[in-house]
Amino acid sequence: MAAITLGDLAARFGCELAGDPGVAVERVGTLAAADGRTLSFLANPRYRRELATTRAGAVALDPGSLASCPCPALVSKNPYALYARIAQLLYPRAAPVPGVHGSAVIDPGARIDPTAQVGPMAVVAAGVVIGPRCVVGPHSILEEGVQLASDIYLSARVTLCSGVRVGARTVVQPGAVIGGDGFGFALDKGQWIKIPQVGSVSIGADVEIGANTTIDRGAIEDTVIADDVKLDNLIQIGHNVRIGKHTAIAGCTGISGSTVIGERCQIGGAVSMGGHLTIVDDVVITGTSMISRSIMHPGVYSSGIPFEEARTWRRLVGHFKRIGEIRQRLARLEGGAGAADEQVGDDERS
Amino acid sequence: MAAITLGDLAARFGCELAGDPGVAVERVGTLAAADGRTLSFLANPRYRRELATTRAGAVALDPGSLASCPCPALVSKNPYALYARIAQLLYPRAAPVPGVHGSAVIDPGARIDPTAQVGPMAVVAAGVVIGPRCVVGPHSILEEGVQLASDIYLSARVTLCSGVRVGARTVVQPGAVIGGDGFGFALDKGQWIKIPQVGSVSIGADVEIGANTTIDRGAIEDTVIADDVKLDNLIQIGHNVRIGKHTAIAGCTGISGSTVIGERCQIGGAVSMGGHLTIVDDVVITGTSMISRSIMHPGVYSSGIPFEEARTWRRLVGHFKRIGEIRQRLARLEGGAGAADEQVGDDERS
Amino acid sequence: MAAITLGDLAARFGCELAGDPGVAVERVGTLAAADGRTLSFLANPRYRRELATTRAGAVALDPGSLASCPCPALVSKNPYALYARIAQLLYPRAAPVPGVHGSAVIDPGARIDPTAQVGPMAVVAAGVVIGPRCVVGPHSILEEGVQLASDIYLSARVTLCSGVRVGARTVVQPGAVIGGDGFGFALDKGQWIKIPQVGSVSIGADVEIGANTTIDRGAIEDTVIADDVKLDNLIQIGHNVRIGKHTAIAGCTGISGSTVIGERCQIGGAVSMGGHLTIVDDVVITGTSMISRSIMHPGVYSSGIPFEEARTWRRLVGHFKRIGEIRQRLARLEGGAGAADEQVGDDERS
Repeated sequence: MAAITLGDLAARFGCELAGDPGVAVERVGTLAAADGRTLSFLANPRYRRELATTRAGAVALDPGSLASCPCPALVSKNPYALYARIAQLLYPRAAPVPGVHGSAVIDPGARIDPTAQVGPMAVVAAGVVIGPRCVVGPHSILEEGVQLASDIYLSARVTLCSGVRVGARTVVQPGAVIGGDGFGFALDKGQWIKIPQVGSVSIGADVEIGANTTIDRGAIEDTVIADDVKLDNLIQIGHNVRIGKHTAIAGCTGISGSTVIGERCQIGGAVSMGGHLTIVDDVVITGTSMISRSIMHPGVYSSGIPFEEARTWRRLVGHFKRIGEIRQRLARLEGGAGAADEQVGDDERS
Repeated sequence: MAAITLGDLAARFGCELAGDPGVAVERVGTLAAADGRTLSFLANPRYRRELATTRAGAVALDPGSLASCPCPALVSKNPYALYARIAQLLYPRAAPVPGVHGSAVIDPGARIDPTAQVGPMAVVAAGVVIGPRCVVGPHSILEEGVQLASDIYLSARVTLCSGVRVGARTVVQPGAVIGGDGFGFALDKGQWIKIPQVGSVSIGADVEIGANTTIDRGAIEDTVIADDVKLDNLIQIGHNVRIGKHTAIAGCTGISGSTVIGERCQIGGAVSMGGHLTIVDDVVITGTSMISRSIMHPGVYSSGIPFEEARTWRRLVGHFKRIGEIRQRLARLEGGAGAADEQVGDDERS
Repeated sequence: MAAITLGDLAARFGCELAGDPGVAVERVGTLAAADGRTLSFLANPRYRRELATTRAGAVALDPGSLASCPCPALVSKNPYALYARIAQLLYPRAAPVPGVHGSAVIDPGARIDPTAQVGPMAVVAAGVVIGPRCVVGPHSILEEGVQLASDIYLSARVTLCSGVRVGARTVVQPGAVIGGDGFGFALDKGQWIKIPQVGSVSIGADVEIGANTTIDRGAIEDTVIADDVKLDNLIQIGHNVRIGKHTAIAGCTGISGSTVIGERCQIGGAVSMGGHLTIVDDVVITGTSMISRSIMHPGVYSSGIPFEEARTWRRLVGHFKRIGEIRQRLARLEGGAGAADEQVGDDERS
């Protein structure tokens, strides 16, 4: 990518420029490491003190930080988004190189758009449709009937099982498995009987799916990931889960089968969510939370207790295991309400 | 699959039929979406209210639900298992297409049954034995000495490291890695020394292993997964773990090395289990539990605290961190037993 | 490997021998299963009682256990490390078979040392450098500009994305993905904008990376894994994380972006660590801990509450959810300090 001037950037993205419009940047960098050809940004207040000494060619920042900036600035109420857009301009994804690598195994019944790129060792089964400008990275597997819209990027080693449909511009990181069988077994006289998983997976447009993340196919109907959903690495999505538009989920989180998550939710890492739940729109769940019942109101929800020194923690756990006794002793001191009180405790469910 | 009549189904599976034996079904569906050619089922009481309005051709249900069923019914005390069996009949797995794909790399020292199917890009090393009617999906890797019994289904991109043995009818989902090195290192003067992992993995018959699940090879003796064990996605099984027959484990659970789990256990998702533990037969562990000591009696075990609104949760955590103080204050009110009481708290171990 | 005498082993590893130096061992085994040609070891006190009846040819043990040993012994203060070194001698990794398999796809712009081994179906892109005696296992993918030093072992199906650098003697288990895009998106008017991840990953020497573990590339600068770091299976390492030398992390742990972990740390399984934190050198974190703030002092840290019977656990949770009420009632009994006390509780942050 050639350099681009700050004047051009301000015009293109409709942001205010404070400084010389003729200065050009050609790469991005941190405030601490930037040089005069580098665009940096300030979005996280943790890094504010690095602004004063930056040698960046320009910094994307919010209006309130402008006074402290020692170099040209591109000013936006959302400097992180501005940075993202400029970085996309400076680091465009390589355009697809149309064609199918000679080592790929393509079923004659597959339809591949002539503008699409299919990499080495890819396996493309019968009935697959690959749309314009899609990139199917090396070692990817597209089973029977997979349908890719346009401009999809399967980076490498992506597995799409039979019937999976993917919307435009979706990106899948290496090792993701979409459409493996859901975990469905019926117990009969001590033996597990496998329940055929006859649904598939429907992935929307502008979705991102992280490395080694797994999304199971539906038991009967499809598992559904709506447009602009962002899934980090090593996430497990059970069969028949439905995730609404613009929801983002951080790594190591697991969503059990048939749970429905609304739009614009933000779910932290290592969250564990039960099955058959409903989470409405605009719910934020902090990392490590255990979600064992539905959430019917927008808001922020948490569980998980932060660490202490191990010795302190062991004491806390010891006390916790005697918390029932604490309540009994308290009731005794208050004068005899203990027994009734304890029954309430016993009935509480989570 | 052609349609099959309810009369045939009742005869084949020995269940009671309420309704016209000549009605035929040809697919499965949910109660809400079923039409007259569809078999549905009612096993989870959450869906009971959908029974009254279903347009299904037939519903598999328990005797207690029969009165509410507006259409023909196949009646069983275990309608979920009945449904599973009928679904297997309507959606049989494709029979193996005998032969080895031209792109696979097969060592001349491997023995492949002529009825087995080996897919594109598979790599089969010396000493491998592939039994009758096995399917080795595309991109699978079978290292030296792997032995597959009969009717095994490795869906795609399955890695079986050297010496892994797999029993009949076992199914492995994409991305699973069986037989990678266990996590064994000795610390010597601040440096880690790798301990060769010279055991392998023995997988029984009728096992299911989920997508991107990892099962480590044994340090000396084998890691063992017994018959009819069902493992969901993204599970980690450490070296020398032994899991007994019919045990099922949900996704994102990790089992540390040398732990032995009994038969017929049911272990929820995101459970974390320490090493060198014993879990007896018939133990149920609910999701997110932390298992740090052995379980010597059948029963149901739990840990993990469900979420609250973040503001409420922060208060609870704040209170929790002062629970020792609570006990001290309580003891002071009761009259001076405080100091002794605290020592008990300190000694408690988990 | 041929057999080796105890005299040779004692001389080679500088340890004391108690017994006949002419006895030879040729394999390793557990104390319980060993025979006269087997070397065993005693490092974990759990197995002490098996020492008295072992039939091993020799046992590696510490001086304090020598008196109870019924057979020849190799004595070391660190018998586990001694065992590791002998096992490496008895079970050497197969030497690389120099050359590139005919099915691999190698870009003409890649440089592969003639002593390196590149397995079936490997894909090696332009600008890749593969050093002496490296093994690139079957189905591995090395994207543009990947650099491998010497004696690296990529077991099978390893994905190294563009620009990843790996130090000497590092071992990577199957399914690991190194250098996938970090989880970086800016929210703008309800839509996620992808932030190009332009850093890469730098892996040191003598590192081990477990099966299906994922390490994201940096957003701007590199993600860094220092020398002799050991990572178990199914670990997620976010973008721009830095892990210091000799640190070991057990399976299913997730480290959020930009967190810096010191040297010689030991981090248990299923730990969940927030982003932008600092963990100093010599920190031990026990399994399942939630790390939501920095740790500035060496020590042992924990969270996670061990299980109870489900009925007991439900009661404990019920009590816990009323812990604020407990403090209020306590304050009331003490005489009126309640309101002020509750405000403290509310302000506490984790």
